[in-house]
Amino acid sequence: KKNTKISRAWWRLPKPEAPAAEGAHFSSPCSSLQMGWGDLGVYGEPSRETPNLDRMAAEGMLFPNFYSANPLCSPSRAALLTGRLPIRNGFYTTNAHARNAYTPQEIVGGIPDSEQLLPELLKKAGYVSKIVGKWHLGHRPQFHPLKHGFDEWFGSPNCHFGPYDNKARPNIPVYRDWEMVGRYYEEFPINLKTGEANLTQIYLQEALDFIKRQARRHPFFLYWAVDATHAPVYASKPFLGTSQRGRYGDAAREIDDSIGKMLEVLHDLHIADNTFVFFTSDNGAALISAPEQGGSNGPFLCGKQTTFEGGMREPALAWWPGHIAAGQVSHQLGSIMDLFTTSLALAGLTPPRDRAIDGLNLLPALLQGRLMDRPVFYYRGDTLMATTLGQHKAHFWTWTNSWENFRQGIDFCPGQNVSGVTTHNLEDHTKLPLIFHLGRDPGERFPLSFASAEYQEALSRITSVVQQHQEALVPGQPQLNVCNWAVMNWAPPGCEKLGKCLTPPESIPKKCLWSH
Amino acid sequence: KKNTKISRAWWRLPKPEAPAAEGAHFSSPCSSLQMGWGDLGVYGEPSRETPNLDRMAAEGMLFPNFYSANPLCSPSRAALLTGRLPIRNGFYTTNAHARNAYTPQEIVGGIPDSEQLLPELLKKAGYVSKIVGKWHLGHRPQFHPLKHGFDEWFGSPNCHFGPYDNKARPNIPVYRDWEMVGRYYEEFPINLKTGEANLTQIYLQEALDFIKRQARRHPFFLYWAVDATHAPVYASKPFLGTSQRGRYGDAAREIDDSIGKMLEVLHDLHIADNTFVFFTSDNGAALISAPEQGGSNGPFLCGKQTTFEGGMREPALAWWPGHIAAGQVSHQLGSIMDLFTTSLALAGLTPPRDRAIDGLNLLPALLQGRLMDRPVFYYRGDTLMATTLGQHKAHFWTWTNSWENFRQGIDFCPGQNVSGVTTHNLEDHTKLPLIFHLGRDPGERFPLSFASAEYQEALSRITSVVQQHQEALVPGQPQLNVCNWAVMNWAPPGCEKLGKCLTPPESIPKKCLWSH
Repeated sequence: KKNTKISRAWWRLPKPEAPAAEGAHFSSPCSSLQMGWGDLGVYGEPSRETPNLDRMAAEGMLFPNFYSANPLCSPSRAALLTGRLPIRNGFYTTNAHARNAYTPQEIVGGIPDSEQLLPELLKKAGYVSKIVGKWHLGHRPQFHPLKHGFDEWFGSPNCHFGPYDNKARPNIPVYRDWEMVGRYYEEFPINLKTGEANLTQIYLQEALDFIKRQARRHPFFLYWAVDATHAPVYASKPFLGTSQRGRYGDAAREIDDSIGKMLEVLHDLHIADNTFVFFTSDNGAALISAPEQGGSNGPFLCGKQTTFEGGMREPALAWWPGHIAAGQVSHQLGSIMDLFTTSLALAGLTPPRDRAIDGLNLLPALLQGRLMDRPVFYYRGDTLMATTLGQHKAHFWTWTNSWENFRQGIDFCPGQNVSGVTTHNLEDHTKLPLIFHLGRDPGERFPLSFASAEYQEALSRITSVVQQHQEALVPGQPQLNVCNWAVMNWAPPGCEKLGKCLTPPESIPKKCLWSH
Repeated sequence: KKNTKISRAWWRLPKPEAPAAEGAHFSSPCSSLQMGWGDLGVYGEPSRETPNLDRMAAEGMLFPNFYSANPLCSPSRAALLTGRLPIRNGFYTTNAHARNAYTPQEIVGGIPDSEQLLPELLKKAGYVSKIVGKWHLGHRPQFHPLKHGFDEWFGSPNCHFGPYDNKARPNIPVYRDWEMVGRYYEEFPINLKTGEANLTQIYLQEALDFIKRQARRHPFFLYWAVDATHAPVYASKPFLGTSQRGRYGDAAREIDDSIGKMLEVLHDLHIADNTFVFFTSDNGAALISAPEQGGSNGPFLCGKQTTFEGGMREPALAWWPGHIAAGQVSHQLGSIMDLFTTSLALAGLTPPRDRAIDGLNLLPALLQGRLMDRPVFYYRGDTLMATTLGQHKAHFWTWTNSWENFRQGIDFCPGQNVSGVTTHNLEDHTKLPLIFHLGRDPGERFPLSFASAEYQEALSRITSVVQQHQEALVPGQPQLNVCNWAVMNWAPPGCEKLGKCLTPPESIPKKCLWSH
């Protein structure tokens, strides 16, 4: 009865699990913006500077085969909170074929009102929800997180790029709840030269305060969406220069330390065994920013912006003492969208029945070590680029970026080059997909022979799943098509009190240009 | 007073440690021939199929920065047993510049009598030594392991290549102690089609029998040198087809399982706290055999045969319950040659004083978590290709293989291509070395800018160490220059009893040809 929309798809769901004890808390630190699979010690990072996350893994369950919903942050975050692929929830573009699309402050779109977000749904079970950090699902008034179910917000609507001159472009505001409390590079300084910024400490404090306040009151949902590992990478003074990995490592260490402190507080408040905590990332490491400002995707191919494993396979750790047994590894194919459905299940709720939901309830994997068959779809904008089923991944289209971009030095796969795979033309393989076995060849270097029985068998299984998916697919209204400089963060709510309102330019909507 | 030869070099040694309790046993399973850094779960292998090695790491100390002495098996093994670089102990060639050199059965050379091997030295402290598996330090009578300190041997003198026709080439013999007991593909079958062979099980039994026999008698040294992960990769029936990683994974799982059984026996015999166990590999994964018969070097560049990190950085685990604290990670730069010096220290012995020893006593790192400054030298044949000091690695020469080889499909870096680094000419950078920071850039993708202060400082430190090294260097007589089909394993000792003697061809010594 539960998850009827899911059971319309081809995979079978196990019998629904009993929800967790009433009033379970859960925080889902989808932190570490574009932290890569290979950035945690427990995933093989050679410097091994994430002792808290490594301990979290040792005390919980590690997922080596866990995926974001997109190789880009906004669409992936929209998918996390809706349990739906970006192609359904609107976080994509149709301005050109297979284009990634960003969510800069000139974007007109955002999360549609028709989407039901996790915190909205959790309200029904009495949950209080807070987002700390980057929202990135639209910055215009109708997209405000407190209009989409969150009760509290401390953070920013867009990336911490800048500094801007507040004339051609305003600096990005930082909000507390409904109103801005300052702007990046102004009240919230980021020193681009030294990399110093106090933001992770502020975000940590916000999280700890919220946890402490809620611990004895309501069940809570905390979405800790920090961004220190996104260029421009930053860390606070005590962490700067402490990593063997440079500034990126400093930022990762500070995030790791913060998560350690949060788990400690859960223990101190005696709610650890009643709090489900999940750590993951929104897309693969941005190798274009490496080595100083980009992380590691371990043995995987390429990074952010691509639909190779490096672009979408993520570190993922689940922690729930007394419920999830310590030291486990689950080979369940997981998705950031599963956090939506799993969180609802934890709260004793079911996902909306009037729409397709892509997220799976992971509780059978988490609590009983079960494996559920399910596909992973790798979209780039409007285009299904690849699909993984079991160990086989089929690429229907391959593309990194254009030759023009590449010749300018924009490289999504530095040091990597797989002939016919990391292509600089958008190559159509739909008639004869490239298929890799991800167990034998996690780095996607050796396509199966088209003539092999293994290829034929894998192709037939994947084709059938893809057909079902595409036949049932109702694409959402694309949100990332229109840009307009007038909609930027000129005069966010609260700017009057601070004397920080700026005058927008003339409204000129135009088609956004996305080069890859 | 100890290690005087080492203190001639530039680094300072800590005060010598007290040797371990009299009569310490140690087995050093330098197993997993060309198993790569990325092949263990604890090093981030996504399929995570090495639970026993992962547990060994959790109960002991993991070294993320541990190196073989050469990107090839024989020289690396010669270095392990002598504590000396191949350039000193003779396991190299001068037939051409910077050539790797193999030890096929037509090789005339082997370990010189002038070298003092670990088991020879351990005799002075009453140790009984056994080698199980591949010796590979020469197969002619004077090179026999029992002439170089081992008391027992079960295994082969060369790689398990074949099957040969016993006319142009004989199949490789398997020895028990002084005499052959059969040949590969004859008495010791390896099914190249299915990958089935019982050899790891035989080697495991040999190890367990030796441990049980010696446990209550003498202190022992066991060198468990298995080769299932070297192409042609094999596994026994219970393991075949069980891995998510294909045949290579099956072999790795069987090795992992065997190590679990050995550690269990040490516990059962109540000698675990008196036995030092070390796991490492002799060179990086052979990517040329990937994906079916080659492993993974994780995030590192290229593989076997190269002096990039993928060719020489190795998995390394130390285990000694009650002495080495559980769950530690040491960032000590370590070398397979350190096992020589460390093992001597454990036995209360000092290394020979009449020759240069490259191995360091790791006990301060193992027992007190200390870090000792020391260089890592990356040789290819007669040529110092690169040197690491601290986090900086300088490449003086770069080469993968020739354009000719490469065009024939011989690729040591499949899917990887770092412009100006993974070169197909032997490029001379001695005047202006390429320098990488291995903490920020473990994949050697982003050379430091020649103009940077960091480059200048690193270059100056490395240059000084290299000068000292080269000024003091006395190269050994090269052993891998001369080949002769007459010296092959035609009539090994014991062949008469088995009726398996073959007639050698005419003796024609010739210069061995090494193409890369």
